[in-house]
Amino acid sequence: MNDAIDFDRYDRIRPIRWTGDALELLDQRKLPFAVEYVRCDDSDAVAAAIHALTVRGAPAIGIAAAWGVVLAAREVEAGNGVEALAAIEPALQRLNAARPTAVNLAWALARMRRVLAGAGGDWREVLAREAQAIADEDLAANRRMGALGAALIEPGSGVLTHCNTGSLATAGFGTALGVIRAGVAQGRIDAVFAGETRPWLQGARLTVWELEQDGIAPTLIADSAASHLMKTGKVRWVIVGADRICANGDTANKIGTYQLAIAARHHGVRFMVAAPSSTVDMDTLSGDAIEIEERDPGELFAVGGTRTAAERVGAWNPVFDVTPHELIDAIVTERGVIERPDEAAMRAAFGG
Amino acid sequence: MNDAIDFDRYDRIRPIRWTGDALELLDQRKLPFAVEYVRCDDSDAVAAAIHALTVRGAPAIGIAAAWGVVLAAREVEAGNGVEALAAIEPALQRLNAARPTAVNLAWALARMRRVLAGAGGDWREVLAREAQAIADEDLAANRRMGALGAALIEPGSGVLTHCNTGSLATAGFGTALGVIRAGVAQGRIDAVFAGETRPWLQGARLTVWELEQDGIAPTLIADSAASHLMKTGKVRWVIVGADRICANGDTANKIGTYQLAIAARHHGVRFMVAAPSSTVDMDTLSGDAIEIEERDPGELFAVGGTRTAAERVGAWNPVFDVTPHELIDAIVTERGVIERPDEAAMRAAFGG
Repeated sequence: MNDAIDFDRYDRIRPIRWTGDALELLDQRKLPFAVEYVRCDDSDAVAAAIHALTVRGAPAIGIAAAWGVVLAAREVEAGNGVEALAAIEPALQRLNAARPTAVNLAWALARMRRVLAGAGGDWREVLAREAQAIADEDLAANRRMGALGAALIEPGSGVLTHCNTGSLATAGFGTALGVIRAGVAQGRIDAVFAGETRPWLQGARLTVWELEQDGIAPTLIADSAASHLMKTGKVRWVIVGADRICANGDTANKIGTYQLAIAARHHGVRFMVAAPSSTVDMDTLSGDAIEIEERDPGELFAVGGTRTAAERVGAWNPVFDVTPHELIDAIVTERGVIERPDEAAMRAAFGG
Repeated sequence: MNDAIDFDRYDRIRPIRWTGDALELLDQRKLPFAVEYVRCDDSDAVAAAIHALTVRGAPAIGIAAAWGVVLAAREVEAGNGVEALAAIEPALQRLNAARPTAVNLAWALARMRRVLAGAGGDWREVLAREAQAIADEDLAANRRMGALGAALIEPGSGVLTHCNTGSLATAGFGTALGVIRAGVAQGRIDAVFAGETRPWLQGARLTVWELEQDGIAPTLIADSAASHLMKTGKVRWVIVGADRICANGDTANKIGTYQLAIAARHHGVRFMVAAPSSTVDMDTLSGDAIEIEERDPGELFAVGGTRTAAERVGAWNPVFDVTPHELIDAIVTERGVIERPDEAAMRAAFGG
């Protein structure tokens, strides 16, 4: 085992490209069958792309929104940041409303607001620098997180992940998938299982695709096969991302995460959440306070052009669930590892 | 609440029709978008239909196979049952090999063999009567099972089911879905949730369809939303069928069942297995001895004509899993209810 990590070898995908005057988003609705970037020339196009899941993944949404602010700024005239902030406020509101659950969206917009409020006549440049900094810091955080998380994994381990928390969900490298990339690079992980992640199939369409791009061969399973897999002993860790981590460690993530945590505990499999510290929301005391986004039930009635259920049946389509901190063995951020997270450990690490 | 059950009101679907000289199978691969029967004129067509999942569900497979024996018998000449048995043995073997896990298939064929071995010159009629008896007994067993299982359910309950264990999986009424039909008819059940059941989507395509046909409005969920649903308190029972029940109560059923049982225990939700006694296999001592069928990984790469993953990725597609008896609150067969099943309780009920 070699603890050095060849980051570039395992990190070739970039879902968000800033061209200097437009934002290009890798259209994740079309992957893995077409690799196409969607061009956004204004902030409303970015908001629409966030809402439509063209770009998804909490960190990537935050980065896209930050560039959306840069685009919004181009449409107003203002002598300084405070004036500009007033002028773009409606656009900021529309960006903020594009997805309700991911804290990174609000976090990135708050950060852009803050620097804008303090900016002088060069406020446009300040915004562009800040958006780039958010993206650069995310990539660096992911690589740090990857190293920290991988250090917890015993050599020869199999791991299971859910949804997509990879390069596609971030500026690059990924959160949970970054830990997995690092673990593979270090020879700690010898088998990667990925759940399909119904209804949107992020695991089947995105995670499997991006790992293949980086030369890591995953094994796809149906979401409902996870417990049976754990029973075979082939998995030592479940590693997932987060859309929001509360003050007590409760974690909102893609629907199905909670189920994996319950199954992991039942089988003595360990459970790791890997997410940037921007995902931590110390103002939300516990998972009970998190609004769970519910999307169109129609997402359960079809896959692409193929219908999977009769028309007009009833359906319930919550997109996230909350995993209570008691079921989490480790929360990994770029700031460090919190084992057996609870409110005391979280406050020690993140203050508040 | 009225404990009388209006069976006919909630039981309108018949997946297997014997015309007198051919077997017609409702093509479950095409539901709910087309209601078409496939005609089988010989036993190999029946075996092929079982293998291809045109007909599915353990009891329905057994019934179809029994009619397959009747069809096989038409192709041989024999003076008595013993001679006929030798002549159709190759066809019996092919029927038996069509699916590996469902014990009802072997059970139905053994029953057909037994009556054939004892038959005289009227052996063709004996076989036809026996196949009809298997079907009739299945329907009666399901209605009995439904009444027994429903009696366990407190009025005002929500229930969650998995896969399809309904009229479509049986001669009619269903096993777990029969319990649910009976519970709805008696006013005990006020909400029915159905998991999609990837990869084959029996829940989305079949369970939702057949409940709608009978005027019961179910709510479809992604398989991975089950734990989140349980956390909301909307479900008091998980009710599933079985492909094989072992001597100690361990139960093989559709992949994902085990995961539901773990989640149910975690939430204090009760877990019921409803299956005909023909599903009980007292010669298999525990779930460890059950061969788990694995099907083509390609089932995870597409839904109908829509691809859901890139080509040639690795995948693992076990079709069943085993729920240990410790996680089962009640096993319901037409012979009665076994609460907290274990080997002693199973042997007391089924001998062996």
